[in-house]
Amino acid sequence: MQNKPFLYTSLSPALFHLYDLSDSVVVIIDVFRATSTIAAAMYNGAAKIIPVADVDECKRIGAELGCITAGERDGKVIEGLQYGNSPAEYPRDFIDGKTLVLTTTNGTKLLHMAVERGAAEVVTGSFPNLSAVCEHLVKLNKNVILGCSAWKDRFNLEDTLFAGAVISRIKDHFTIHCDSSLMAEQMYQLHQHDMYQFIRHTTHWHRLAAYGLEKDLEFCVTEDAANVLVTYKNGELVAG
Amino acid sequence: MQNKPFLYTSLSPALFHLYDLSDSVVVIIDVFRATSTIAAAMYNGAAKIIPVADVDECKRIGAELGCITAGERDGKVIEGLQYGNSPAEYPRDFIDGKTLVLTTTNGTKLLHMAVERGAAEVVTGSFPNLSAVCEHLVKLNKNVILGCSAWKDRFNLEDTLFAGAVISRIKDHFTIHCDSSLMAEQMYQLHQHDMYQFIRHTTHWHRLAAYGLEKDLEFCVTEDAANVLVTYKNGELVAG
Repeated sequence: MQNKPFLYTSLSPALFHLYDLSDSVVVIIDVFRATSTIAAAMYNGAAKIIPVADVDECKRIGAELGCITAGERDGKVIEGLQYGNSPAEYPRDFIDGKTLVLTTTNGTKLLHMAVERGAAEVVTGSFPNLSAVCEHLVKLNKNVILGCSAWKDRFNLEDTLFAGAVISRIKDHFTIHCDSSLMAEQMYQLHQHDMYQFIRHTTHWHRLAAYGLEKDLEFCVTEDAANVLVTYKNGELVAG
Repeated sequence: MQNKPFLYTSLSPALFHLYDLSDSVVVIIDVFRATSTIAAAMYNGAAKIIPVADVDECKRIGAELGCITAGERDGKVIEGLQYGNSPAEYPRDFIDGKTLVLTTTNGTKLLHMAVERGAAEVVTGSFPNLSAVCEHLVKLNKNVILGCSAWKDRFNLEDTLFAGAVISRIKDHFTIHCDSSLMAEQMYQLHQHDMYQFIRHTTHWHRLAAYGLEKDLEFCVTEDAANVLVTYKNGELVAG
């Protein structure tokens, strides 16, 4: 009876080393905005997304494969790249069937850490693909690490809230002895009905709203707005 | 008008490097049980408390000064030391006027980090001395870092709840742009009236209640049960 797999929440890449990844699936969470944009682009038919940490690598791969390059710093498209990190930039009539090379900071860093540390499987998650992530985790029946990308290693609320959303949906299927998970679940339950208002109090909102990204940020906390499972395989994010 | 000092909450020693300590006062928080026991012993008249990380150092200083040695591992007094890490072991008729050398793990580690990194001032805090800490921070009018000792670097709820209690009392005097602080405050507000019940859900409760320490743990979350300011000066914790 008590053979449920474990679930832990890592609140920052600087805490990620505390968790054993062997035989575990890691969910990379970067709500504002990498894993939300990834969900949107995949949902709209992107063939694959190659996440890279480095701008030069992004340009090199883009030139090599003749594919779309994207990345932002301080709310602007990086010089030499073509597109930004907004989910609104990737509608179906643009991205369907295409390959995207995306450079992000916090999310990509954690994703590469998970791969290097031998996670059995890596998926990306945010509110737009909440149900797809939850259904997959329940079906897999493996240990789960919910990995918040945070902001320059600092705890952030939006990633924590998504971890809480996952936990509040799937907790009956897992053994959870983890204060981070308990806190995340309670914060989500506290704010699930005032999410659009509450995220206005986060530090990341203040950082990004200054660039006029309010609509983007609201999309990023909209449940199942782009409900597709995204898995990392051989250096690429693919649907399913 | 907008000249309020900053306040940040560091949720783990593994995140502590992210915060600038210069010209800041650091509050070391280790609710279960180091900073609660420290408050109790100081409130009951201890002359001073010398916190050390190492058991051998504890024995050496104890022998040198002829003072009381204390420390626990796994809920038992460490072999070769005299007392444990329970606030109940230090009533006035025992500790008044005496010096205590105390070895703890999580709290002492963070305290020494704060000193090494040049904090302007270091105080210890837990629910039993909540008001004394808050009044001091408001009076000082310096930047504040609330430092949660956590458990082996893992986020814990009891330290976070104390940070939240401080924030909810003194936030009007500080500039707070910090998701950790916002979360801590909300978790405290959510549980301030069911604290004795809620702490039964934390991982640390399960660890320590197995040793029959329930009464201890309840004392540790009782506001102003030993309301004394405790400051670290020249290697010693002293009252005031």
